[in-house]
Amino acid sequence: MKLFYAPQSPFARKVRVVSIEIGVEEQIELVFIKVLPGTPNTTFQNTHNPLRKIPALETSGGSTIYDSTVICEYLDSLSGVTKMIPADGPERWRTLTNHALAQGMCESAVLIRYETWLRPEPLRWANWTNDQWDRINTGLEWFERNDEAVGGQIDLAQITLGCLLGYMDFRWPDNGWRERYPNISDWYEILMRRPSFSRTIPQDPSPA
Amino acid sequence: MKLFYAPQSPFARKVRVVSIEIGVEEQIELVFIKVLPGTPNTTFQNTHNPLRKIPALETSGGSTIYDSTVICEYLDSLSGVTKMIPADGPERWRTLTNHALAQGMCESAVLIRYETWLRPEPLRWANWTNDQWDRINTGLEWFERNDEAVGGQIDLAQITLGCLLGYMDFRWPDNGWRERYPNISDWYEILMRRPSFSRTIPQDPSPA
Repeated sequence: MKLFYAPQSPFARKVRVVSIEIGVEEQIELVFIKVLPGTPNTTFQNTHNPLRKIPALETSGGSTIYDSTVICEYLDSLSGVTKMIPADGPERWRTLTNHALAQGMCESAVLIRYETWLRPEPLRWANWTNDQWDRINTGLEWFERNDEAVGGQIDLAQITLGCLLGYMDFRWPDNGWRERYPNISDWYEILMRRPSFSRTIPQDPSPA
Repeated sequence: MKLFYAPQSPFARKVRVVSIEIGVEEQIELVFIKVLPGTPNTTFQNTHNPLRKIPALETSGGSTIYDSTVICEYLDSLSGVTKMIPADGPERWRTLTNHALAQGMCESAVLIRYETWLRPEPLRWANWTNDQWDRINTGLEWFERNDEAVGGQIDLAQITLGCLLGYMDFRWPDNGWRERYPNISDWYEILMRRPSFSRTIPQDPSPA
């Protein structure tokens, strides 16, 4: 299988973490793809994903699967024993909702990055950036209060929250979230010891 | 159950269409919520969804489920016979990937709306809007070419594509997509005859 990815993407990291956690990492070849709004990668767009978003997975059968959540569920299904999302019952909906929260926070983080880095400086709108930060911070407050969401067995929601925090440390190292959210900070420190996280720390792509 | 929604949202419409298709509409009370970047609804944010996004579903047990995809899957699970997403096999990953494409196109449409209507006029960036339109158009070209994706039994991917097209007609009635994508146009005309679509046409909320 080929995973189209970039080393800074929290969504691609989520898939890489899952692939390591469930033991299918060695079946996956990583293929770096540069995608950025305004500078389209038309080859990737035409052959793999019309949205030009990473990650996308080319399966051994030659079909393409995306987005990150679908890829994670697909990989998790390969072994026959799913580990990342409970198969049914209230735990399934709780995990998927917590995951949707963490995923939405990642989307806000990437929108902030585009607003404060990609968009020409005179066209930036502080209200937009503040609004996205408010979503992230309210989400972090929610996880801080609901410690059952960041305890127990690792799942897709926890992995996605971990990828958000890693992205925040990468892009905004002075954010100071550890002081404001001590429960999450303690949980994150333990999470980072897992090889799936310590081996996938975000980094800018090497210059070509 | 209570569905927090707005009558113009393609994501809320997706849930309403599914609820009608699978026959659980009468179990759902619709609750209008105004959410807009920059003017947060803090009550909804603190009680239901830190991301302040609709739709969100309050179940009869009092817990909250989001985002739209998770709600659809939850509702679809209630009967014991899922109809909206194939349970397994290649059809599952094909449907979920097609759905992720249509969902990403809806997200681009809403980003265009924010850029060209919500953001102060001097701060608008044509490159951003053009980039989002390119994603939508490339996605429509993909569906136009892959007619097995818009044929056969209705599923979550087709419903989401239908909600995108309805939103485009609502916001940009002069877009002219029907001329450019005749296969999709023919399919959409038949889709619109379903009560689930004809009864959920997007509209602006009534003035309070």
